[in-house]
Amino acid sequence: MKRLRSSDPGFDMAFRRIVDDRRESDENVAGDVADILARVKARGDAALSEYTHRFDDHQLTEDADWRIDLADCKAAFDGLDGALRDALTLAADRIRAYHEKQLPADRDETDASGVRLGARWRPVDAAGLYVPGGRAAYPSSLLMNAIPAKVAGVERLAVVTPTPGGKTNPLVLAAAHVAGVDEVWRIGGAQAIAALAYGTERIRRVDVITGPGNAWVAEAKRQLFGVVGIDMVAGPSEILVIADRHNDPDWIAADLLSQAEHDPDAQSILITDDADFAEQVEDRVDVQCAMLKTHKVARASWDDHGVMIVVDNLEQAIPLANALAAEHVELAVADPEPFVEGIRHVGSLFIGRMAPEAVGDYVAGPNHVLPTGRRARFSSGLSVLDFMKRTSFIEVDAPALAAIGPAAAALAHAEGLEAHARSIELRLK
Amino acid sequence: MKRLRSSDPGFDMAFRRIVDDRRESDENVAGDVADILARVKARGDAALSEYTHRFDDHQLTEDADWRIDLADCKAAFDGLDGALRDALTLAADRIRAYHEKQLPADRDETDASGVRLGARWRPVDAAGLYVPGGRAAYPSSLLMNAIPAKVAGVERLAVVTPTPGGKTNPLVLAAAHVAGVDEVWRIGGAQAIAALAYGTERIRRVDVITGPGNAWVAEAKRQLFGVVGIDMVAGPSEILVIADRHNDPDWIAADLLSQAEHDPDAQSILITDDADFAEQVEDRVDVQCAMLKTHKVARASWDDHGVMIVVDNLEQAIPLANALAAEHVELAVADPEPFVEGIRHVGSLFIGRMAPEAVGDYVAGPNHVLPTGRRARFSSGLSVLDFMKRTSFIEVDAPALAAIGPAAAALAHAEGLEAHARSIELRLK
Repeated sequence: MKRLRSSDPGFDMAFRRIVDDRRESDENVAGDVADILARVKARGDAALSEYTHRFDDHQLTEDADWRIDLADCKAAFDGLDGALRDALTLAADRIRAYHEKQLPADRDETDASGVRLGARWRPVDAAGLYVPGGRAAYPSSLLMNAIPAKVAGVERLAVVTPTPGGKTNPLVLAAAHVAGVDEVWRIGGAQAIAALAYGTERIRRVDVITGPGNAWVAEAKRQLFGVVGIDMVAGPSEILVIADRHNDPDWIAADLLSQAEHDPDAQSILITDDADFAEQVEDRVDVQCAMLKTHKVARASWDDHGVMIVVDNLEQAIPLANALAAEHVELAVADPEPFVEGIRHVGSLFIGRMAPEAVGDYVAGPNHVLPTGRRARFSSGLSVLDFMKRTSFIEVDAPALAAIGPAAAALAHAEGLEAHARSIELRLK
Repeated sequence: MKRLRSSDPGFDMAFRRIVDDRRESDENVAGDVADILARVKARGDAALSEYTHRFDDHQLTEDADWRIDLADCKAAFDGLDGALRDALTLAADRIRAYHEKQLPADRDETDASGVRLGARWRPVDAAGLYVPGGRAAYPSSLLMNAIPAKVAGVERLAVVTPTPGGKTNPLVLAAAHVAGVDEVWRIGGAQAIAALAYGTERIRRVDVITGPGNAWVAEAKRQLFGVVGIDMVAGPSEILVIADRHNDPDWIAADLLSQAEHDPDAQSILITDDADFAEQVEDRVDVQCAMLKTHKVARASWDDHGVMIVVDNLEQAIPLANALAAEHVELAVADPEPFVEGIRHVGSLFIGRMAPEAVGDYVAGPNHVLPTGRRARFSSGLSVLDFMKRTSFIEVDAPALAAIGPAAAALAHAEGLEAHARSIELRLK
């Protein structure tokens, strides 16, 4: 963990190093991934079956080996304990309600020249959703990806998820039921992304692929960007907590650890104006961390990437936050509004002392798939727009063409595009 | 050029081949591009200078070699002939008016549980725009990329454009003036994209890069996707014209050629219900093509990629259009509305016999940067949203946390994320 003071002479350089630290593994899997994509494209299910046997120790033979029945998803949901079932339902309902308000409006106007102009939004036909096995197999992540697709109006939503050794995760199946997923395939890795993008004998191709995954999955998505639509490149999680001394240090320590426990490469940063408070938080991090089942991961993240910055006054946190462009920013301060206004680059803001980031991970409603690695400078969290596309339209009649056509023809001539000009001039004759 | 009849027995297969034909060069420049990016990242201006000397025969020494003064852009505009100046101004005004209506609304609501939820949109700080030299140096393309960025509120818009042998293009400079561009740099190729993404001594890095380019530029953008935001992968242009017999064959021929003259890999497709009309159009294509200055390109495109499909009735065009997911579709039919409704996958629709696609290239107002290569299945034309990002926010007080916190904690426990649960439970005590 690094301790910085904004009044120290070397602060700017030290802070710059934190901003520039990528924390993303540069595992070079591009060649192997390209090979897997090419084989699945050429050989379809046969290639999927071989890879799944090799990487997931799972044999794809009968239909039930390939695909999890939707009835099994419902059974998994029904089998959950009541409080968990209610929690999953509450989360889904709140996520759905928030995303329904993202649905964009169509446009259709006729301007003064008589030109009718508009734009309309339509869902893609089919979306694919990657759900990892292992540590990152989170039902909440399934809800956050699947519900926006369904709200967008996507008719076919196919989940792919590895089932190593044949084992399925009942919570993930229950979430698939709650989210209204249409297909669940027992495949994973780059081969699953290839199947979704190209289609195979059993699996129809989709138009958009979203969802988190390991380096192979991420590289497969990157290579197939353009063949299908994909969500953003995702890196390890991060949180910036801006807190004054009037917080319970235990609460802030828990918030910092809630990011750290995700991933050894996750990053938790505290900015405060009180050095004593920072020390108290540090103590509480140590105490709490030791008690966590996730302590190994949390400890590694905090030791390697944790940062505590003591500033002279909290206003200084605003430009620092903009440079960090963090995925999550908590504002545990008496008057959050200047920070809400001033922090321009951030995935999601958590406002007030009673707003721990974890409420946003599960039940608040906004999406928890957010830009990481300083990408909040230019990208946004997942939304219904990622599962829709816009078509513009232009309707022109004779008087409207007389009004705007000559200018278009003049520009076409200037660009040396004669057929463009002619297509207008023939109609103006 | 291929002639197909929907009633022929082999039609489905032949049509499928057209849909699957990629038309995109697979020039393998990935390794060379990676090398250029790494060198510019490491050596900055020195690397830029070497590449520009080597690839563009242009020496970057004095400030004026590096950068075109905005006063020179204004002078280029003032020096245009009056009609062209008016046409450029009309185009910019109409593009601006259309894109202003794309500005998204912010959200800020408090729900029944007392949770305040919202989302706000902000422009990125800086955008970079690639403008090719040579055949594709179109002022209209500069307007279509720059104006949405400025409407979004981007404070710094930097154009990069190669000036081979030191030669500049006055129309491009004039368009930069009209669009309100802030910087014009005389660099091109993958090295210019690297400079925009990483920054150099002279050129500050940007957050988003858009604009068309050759295979090197496209590959550089693809490799830097995630370091910066980029617009979509762009392939060769395409048009689908759906026309009944009551059109002037000369008009339709000009429309088909207006795509063909862009690029030998462009594609023009006619669907009609009248074989005689198709033949007349074909004759007029041959006659007009021979007269064009662009005839070499147009001829190659039409011969290699042109398609004429005769259907039994025009309604059959709707599923064909959805499979083609073309960049542009013209509806030159008596009653366009069923087609407007039925064609879901298309970049932009041109409605009516008096709406040649070329009006959309220049002055109609909607963006002419549109998804190609069947990507209208999942992606949209360029818009102000490409230059903005959305931040969600969540404000929770004690009663609100009491309402939704326990469900979040239950889900966190189920996912094995104890610190997540603790960050909520400590506050609920």
